[in-house]
Amino acid sequence: MHIAITGAAGFLGQRLVNQLLARGQLDGEAITRLTLIDQVEAPKPDVKGVEVECLALDITSPGALDPVLDERPAVIYHLAAVVSSAAEADLDLGMAVNFDATRELLEGCRQRELSGTRLVMASSVAAYGGDMPVVLDDMTALHPQNSYGTQKAMCELLINDYSRRGLVDGRVLRLPTIVIRPGRPNAAASSFASSILREPLAGEQAICPVPVEQELFVMSPAKVIDALVHAAEVLGESIGAFRALMLPGITVSVSEMLEALREAAGDEAVARVRHEADPRIQAIVSGWPARFDTEKSRELGFTGDRDFKEIIDAYISESR
Amino acid sequence: MHIAITGAAGFLGQRLVNQLLARGQLDGEAITRLTLIDQVEAPKPDVKGVEVECLALDITSPGALDPVLDERPAVIYHLAAVVSSAAEADLDLGMAVNFDATRELLEGCRQRELSGTRLVMASSVAAYGGDMPVVLDDMTALHPQNSYGTQKAMCELLINDYSRRGLVDGRVLRLPTIVIRPGRPNAAASSFASSILREPLAGEQAICPVPVEQELFVMSPAKVIDALVHAAEVLGESIGAFRALMLPGITVSVSEMLEALREAAGDEAVARVRHEADPRIQAIVSGWPARFDTEKSRELGFTGDRDFKEIIDAYISESR
Repeated sequence: MHIAITGAAGFLGQRLVNQLLARGQLDGEAITRLTLIDQVEAPKPDVKGVEVECLALDITSPGALDPVLDERPAVIYHLAAVVSSAAEADLDLGMAVNFDATRELLEGCRQRELSGTRLVMASSVAAYGGDMPVVLDDMTALHPQNSYGTQKAMCELLINDYSRRGLVDGRVLRLPTIVIRPGRPNAAASSFASSILREPLAGEQAICPVPVEQELFVMSPAKVIDALVHAAEVLGESIGAFRALMLPGITVSVSEMLEALREAAGDEAVARVRHEADPRIQAIVSGWPARFDTEKSRELGFTGDRDFKEIIDAYISESR
Repeated sequence: MHIAITGAAGFLGQRLVNQLLARGQLDGEAITRLTLIDQVEAPKPDVKGVEVECLALDITSPGALDPVLDERPAVIYHLAAVVSSAAEADLDLGMAVNFDATRELLEGCRQRELSGTRLVMASSVAAYGGDMPVVLDDMTALHPQNSYGTQKAMCELLINDYSRRGLVDGRVLRLPTIVIRPGRPNAAASSFASSILREPLAGEQAICPVPVEQELFVMSPAKVIDALVHAAEVLGESIGAFRALMLPGITVSVSEMLEALREAAGDEAVARVRHEADPRIQAIVSGWPARFDTEKSRELGFTGDRDFKEIIDAYISESR
C-alpha cells in the first residue's frame, strides 16, 4: 500500500509516519511505500521493505502534487495547513494553503479517477463559533469566527461533495485542542494549554493567561494519531451523509489540568504556573466550544483519552 | 444610491428591479443608479431620475465585474447562479459560477476597500441535507447533498469571513422553495410545486409526482423580494455572528396546496392535477427539510406569507 502525507514534517505528520511504520500495515494491507511531502524535506526514516520518498515542495504551486497523484496512492493524509494565527494575519496565504491547495488535491484525484483513494483531512474545533449551544454535536452549524476555521469548513464541504459524487473517498476529522504538544510556547492562542503542563514538568515557569474555570476540549497527540489511522480504515459510507466529524475529545477545565499536574508532579510543579490574565487570549479562548456529544465518532470506533491524568501520564512516560 | 444586481435578467432579478424602482429609495436614500448584470442584457426600464445600465457579461470571466466595482456601488445584489440541476450535471460550471464568481466579487470589493458595500446573496434551502432534525433552525449544520447547496454553503462561509474581517458588509438569505413561479414547467425537481397550481389555474393539466403528504417549505415571490430589499436595509452587525439566515417560509403539504387551489378555483381546477408518482423526483424532494424555526429572521424584521391561501390569491391577482 502506498500512502502519501502532506505536512509530513510537522508535529502530527512525524508522529503519524512513526505510527504507520511501527504498525507496518493499514487496513490489513502491508505498507510498502510512503511519500512524505512538506515545505521542507521531512526526515527520511530507514525501514526495511518500505520505499520512502521525501519531497520538499510548495503545495500552493499549481500541479505540485501531480507527480505524487500520478503514482495513485491508496491513502492520502492531507495535514498541511497554515495555522490559525497565520491564516488570520494573511488571508491570501490562508486561502492558498488551507483552501486552494485542498481543492487542487481534490481536482487532481478527480482527473486521475482516484475514486477509491482515501483522503483523510484534519479539520478543527476552530470551525465552530458564534452563538453555540452549551453542548455541541455533529449537527451543530459551523459558524467560524476566524479565517482558519472558515477555510477548514469550506474544505469539509468540498471533500464531502467530491466524495458524494464518487470522485474520491474523503474523511475529515475535526481535531480537539491537542494537549500536551512538545516543544516551546508559540503565538497560538492555545499555546498555554500545553505550556502550563509541559514547562512545569521540565522545571520551568509558565504563564496561564485564562481563568482556571476555563474549559477546553482536548485530546492527546497519541489519540489523534490513532484517530488518523482509524479514519483511513473505516468504510467511507459508514460516516454517513456528511464526511466530517468531531473526534471524541474530553472536556477539562484549567483547574482540573493543574490538579492532574499536582498529582503527577507535586505542588512545586503547580507553583511554577503564574496566573497572569491576558484579555486578548481570554477573548479568543472563551469563544471555543468545550462540550461535545461525540456519539457519532465513538460509534464509528474512534476513541479518546479516558481522563486528563492519562494524558499527563502518557506525556511524562514519552518524555523520559 | 447606486445598486448593482447580478442575475438581473432572471425571475427574481427582474422582480427586484421593478420593486426597487417602484420604491424609489433604499434605506432612506434615493436610488439614482442601477447596474443590471446578466449573461444576456436585461430589459432596460425607463424611469426618470434613475440612471440604468444593462451589462451582458460572463461573471466567470476574470475581472468581468471590475468596471462595476470601480463605480463603488453602495449595494450589490448577487443573484446570478447556476441552478441545482445544472450544478449537479456539471461540477466545473457550478463551481465557476456559484463559487468562484462570488469569491472574485468578494476579492474585488476587498481590493477597492468597499467595506461599507452591502452585498446581498441568495443562498438556498438546498444547502441543508443529510440526517436533519425534524425542525431545523439557523444552528443546524449544512450538510448539502448536492453540489449547488455545497457551493452556496461555501459562499456563505466566505461572505461571513469577509464581513467579519470588515472587507465587505455581507448578508446571505437562504431562500425557501419559491411558489408560485410564473412560466412553464422545467427540469428542476421543485418544478411541480408551482406547476400543480399554475397550470390548473390556467385551465391546463399538471402532474403531481410526489405523495400529497409531502411537505414543503415555501415562500411567495413577493415575500422573497421584500426580504431581499429588507436584507439591504438591516444593520449587518444585527445579523449576529454568522451572516446567513433562513427566511421565514411556511410549511405546507401538497394536499394543503391543492385544498387552497380548490378554495380559489374550484373542484374542476383540482381535477386537472394528475397524480403520477415519479420515484426520482420523490427521492430528491423527500430529502428537503420542510420545517424550520425562523425566529431569528423574524426578529430581524423579515416577514413571510401568512398562509398558502394568501400565496395563491396573490398569484391570481398578479396574473390578471
